Amino acid sequence: MAELPALLRVLNGERLPTPPIWIMRQAGRYLPEYRELRTRAKSFLDFCYSPALATEAVMQPLRRFPLDAAILFSDILVVPDAIGRKVWFVEGEGPRLEPLLDVQAWRFETAERAIQRLSPVYEAVERIKAAIPNETALIGFCGAPWTVATYMLQGRGGEKDQARRALYERGQDVDALLDVLVEVSAQHLAQQVRAGADCLQIFESWAEGMPPALFQRAIVSPTAKLVARLRGLGVSVPVIGFPRGAGANFEAYAKATGVTALGVDTQTSGSWARARAPAGMALQGNLDPQALVAGGDALAAAVQDTVAQFAGGPHIFNLGHGITPEAKPEHVAELVRLVKGGA
Amino acid sequence: MAELPALLRVLNGERLPTPPIWIMRQAGRYLPEYRELRTRAKSFLDFCYSPALATEAVMQPLRRFPLDAAILFSDILVVPDAIGRKVWFVEGEGPRLEPLLDVQAWRFETAERAIQRLSPVYEAVERIKAAIPNETALIGFCGAPWTVATYMLQGRGGEKDQARRALYERGQDVDALLDVLVEVSAQHLAQQVRAGADCLQIFESWAEGMPPALFQRAIVSPTAKLVARLRGLGVSVPVIGFPRGAGANFEAYAKATGVTALGVDTQTSGSWARARAPAGMALQGNLDPQALVAGGDALAAAVQDTVAQFAGGPHIFNLGHGITPEAKPEHVAELVRLVKGGA
Repeated sequence: MAELPALLRVLNGERLPTPPIWIMRQAGRYLPEYRELRTRAKSFLDFCYSPALATEAVMQPLRRFPLDAAILFSDILVVPDAIGRKVWFVEGEGPRLEPLLDVQAWRFETAERAIQRLSPVYEAVERIKAAIPNETALIGFCGAPWTVATYMLQGRGGEKDQARRALYERGQDVDALLDVLVEVSAQHLAQQVRAGADCLQIFESWAEGMPPALFQRAIVSPTAKLVARLRGLGVSVPVIGFPRGAGANFEAYAKATGVTALGVDTQTSGSWARARAPAGMALQGNLDPQALVAGGDALAAAVQDTVAQFAGGPHIFNLGHGITPEAKPEHVAELVRLVKGGA
Repeated sequence: MAELPALLRVLNGERLPTPPIWIMRQAGRYLPEYRELRTRAKSFLDFCYSPALATEAVMQPLRRFPLDAAILFSDILVVPDAIGRKVWFVEGEGPRLEPLLDVQAWRFETAERAIQRLSPVYEAVERIKAAIPNETALIGFCGAPWTVATYMLQGRGGEKDQARRALYERGQDVDALLDVLVEVSAQHLAQQVRAGADCLQIFESWAEGMPPALFQRAIVSPTAKLVARLRGLGVSVPVIGFPRGAGANFEAYAKATGVTALGVDTQTSGSWARARAPAGMALQGNLDPQALVAGGDALAAAVQDTVAQFAGGPHIFNLGHGITPEAKPEHVAELVRLVKGGA
């Protein structure tokens, strides 16, 4: 029987002498071949909904670097799109949605219907699974309910003031929205696993700036519901939760959401996170993407520091935030070489 | 002999049954009279450099609300302006500077010359001191070296990627820039105290997203130097350090910078901060500005929660971030009433 991929062994709690490595946004704009591929679809969502293009995007970094995981090429905003909220991408600025200002607009497609609309995503997962080597783990993902809700409430990323204000002004409406997102996201992740995903990541990209009471209400509680619902749907694969910017609220997230492993952001030291996570839990992170842009001695020092910070338990090497378009592919090759410790 | 203002008593370590309150950006755009006053100067910097206008701006909120402190009306970017970097403000977007891309540009005016250029600021402090009641404390301030450096390196606020990259790519240049800012900022704060400021606040508005090693290098170390230099200049007044977004790095800041008191941001619970600050240190914060926008029951609950979170030691009530232009003055009146516990 083939050995389990290194990433899955670590997610199961094993400490490996060389941490497995993958890179958030490893299929992306820093690769010239991705920029070329991207021109073949009119819109970014069209690209995501093309199983052939999504599969090719996933394969591109794997051809260049001996990475330990592939991650589905998709976007966290396919979920609002699938429940009937218009989503579009402004070049160089990011996603836009019509803000949920009017309560009449708070009517969404059913989860069943949403999952039908997302069938191209599951087809992409099947194709990717067939294309990648056995030792490469395949990660499925979704945005966490609060992060997706912030985009829906604000109409864009970045500032979360309006979304947080909505929690104060019409908290029950927001709770209901989060419940909708929990159900659709759970179904969406379960379908990815049925199509071949080996493990899952929940991206809480906007965990920052939340007072502890709101963090509990809009982040910890919906994430715990999402994980529990996934388990209720019979999904047993490991789930990595990544509460970016959680700061002092990291511990509450680590202990009360039920995730299997934790993504650690750039500003949080691995040893600090280790001391606050349940014993033996795998941690993932957290090289500064700007160290990767810089390269050279600064990169080598930052890699060494990262490995040392996480050395106390199971570790998956990654960045603490997505790779930036400015990163040179040669620096990524150097990073992988540094982590793998070989020539 | 008159009693010390409540704010200073708390900064000296006293626990008061009713916390003193002031509000970051209490003189500002949420007040219609400020918006009117602002039209009397052509540029925002002209406004800051007019002692008469700056004094009037400071007095406006004091006429409306029984606040315990006034804070100098100025901007953290008067320091780069004074050392010879062009600063301008784009309406609705924020400040702009020519980014420090070229090493030839890294030549600055001397601290002595900068302080001469900032004389209208000290005249404003004198006028404000003469205008406010005795029981109202007067706070002077500056931006922390790293925060000011991010604006200088990036040319704007918000994203700090280029500034962080500079730390990796030309760290010694950045260290030298931080040293320049330490010296000018120390002189600038000392002049404010000579002109009448009772205490000081150092705004580290961009403490977020820094890996621990960079947090130590660019935030803790320059802030410690700044506080030490201030003491060397004979300044003995309390210094509040506000490392907004420090997250898990808050503790390092609390213990190694030498500040007298700590500002706590919105996402950090008062009790968590208390447990990590030196025993008996005054803490300031941290109501969510969006709770103030919302008003009503949500505001009352958030105020109660904030007071309870900080109840274990000396507390100055404030927001965890500046008040937003959307906040209604009536909500501010209600906030002060709630904190003061009176009719």
